Amino acid sequence: MKELPSYIALVDSFSKLPGIGAKTAERMAYAVLEMREDDALGFADAIKDCRTNIHKCPKCGLYAENGHCEVCDDSARDHSTMIVVSFPKDALAFEKLNDFHGIYHVLGGVISPSKGFGAESLSIDSLFRRIEEEGVKEVVIATNPNLEGETTALYLARLLSDKGVSVSRLAYGLPMGASLDYADSLTLSKALEGRKKL
Amino acid sequence: MKELPSYIALVDSFSKLPGIGAKTAERMAYAVLEMREDDALGFADAIKDCRTNIHKCPKCGLYAENGHCEVCDDSARDHSTMIVVSFPKDALAFEKLNDFHGIYHVLGGVISPSKGFGAESLSIDSLFRRIEEEGVKEVVIATNPNLEGETTALYLARLLSDKGVSVSRLAYGLPMGASLDYADSLTLSKALEGRKKL
Repeated sequence: MKELPSYIALVDSFSKLPGIGAKTAERMAYAVLEMREDDALGFADAIKDCRTNIHKCPKCGLYAENGHCEVCDDSARDHSTMIVVSFPKDALAFEKLNDFHGIYHVLGGVISPSKGFGAESLSIDSLFRRIEEEGVKEVVIATNPNLEGETTALYLARLLSDKGVSVSRLAYGLPMGASLDYADSLTLSKALEGRKKL
Repeated sequence: MKELPSYIALVDSFSKLPGIGAKTAERMAYAVLEMREDDALGFADAIKDCRTNIHKCPKCGLYAENGHCEVCDDSARDHSTMIVVSFPKDALAFEKLNDFHGIYHVLGGVISPSKGFGAESLSIDSLFRRIEEEGVKEVVIATNPNLEGETTALYLARLLSDKGVSVSRLAYGLPMGASLDYADSLTLSKALEGRKKL
């Protein structure tokens, strides 16, 4: 069974998923063999449908199924507040909060000279166009708290400084539920620096 | 994005795989969206191909891609020694040893009155036919070491007792690398019972 070409091809496909090693990929391919026929064929169709039906929203860059995404199309949302993220999955994290009712803009990456990603590869032009056209008043930059995310945030903040919008960055500090003695020193110093009056 | 029907369908398909919870299924579906187009379509095709091309070997019940499986077709293997397993994946475990050169027979399950699986649902008739036709001399019963596996093994051993074949069962004992103080008492008593002269 180890040498069946169709099986090997499926194991290979599974191992392209994030966090899936050779052994797990084998277990999954085996599960597909043991699945009910219609479940397995439905699985294959679901993958094809995802790639056929889902595209990036031409406005914000989130994934959408028809025309613009549900966030851009929703007139009940506050179109004057915008969170700028690197990737669609980051916006998904905010959507799960059910707490933010503004709009998003996906940069499509971060500035990373070592990987050859310059600012020109990010969707910054369309960000400026949207800020003007949609009357955005507040921009929250939500790139990851690491070197590349910081560089990108500072670069954007400088570009936006003369656009008449309020630009902010997510707060740094201790994650909720953390314990002080396990916090790394950089996080702890950021938490001290950003201390709030009670 | 949480509400895109094609995305939800794919998350749903992924969560049918063993050991995949809602969160991992979401991460995988997201990875499919971010994959290269041809990798994603290749993935869908790989699932379909697996189900179209792979069937159970009509002789032994292992998975095969054309006609009989590679084990049954291989005349270099010792067709007089047979390992009887519950499921194809159990045979795969032996194949990985590269140590066993006999043939297999897949029962298709175990006797489990609580789940409504009686002996009649197992491929026992074809096992007897094969033992006669293929001149099998030794049968090793390799069902799992639990209540249902034991019941099945004892039932088979009794049926086979007058067929003129040598019937054995896998050895019980301590797994290699185990430590004595962590071994459960049943395993330990089996290891003592099956002790070997040095």
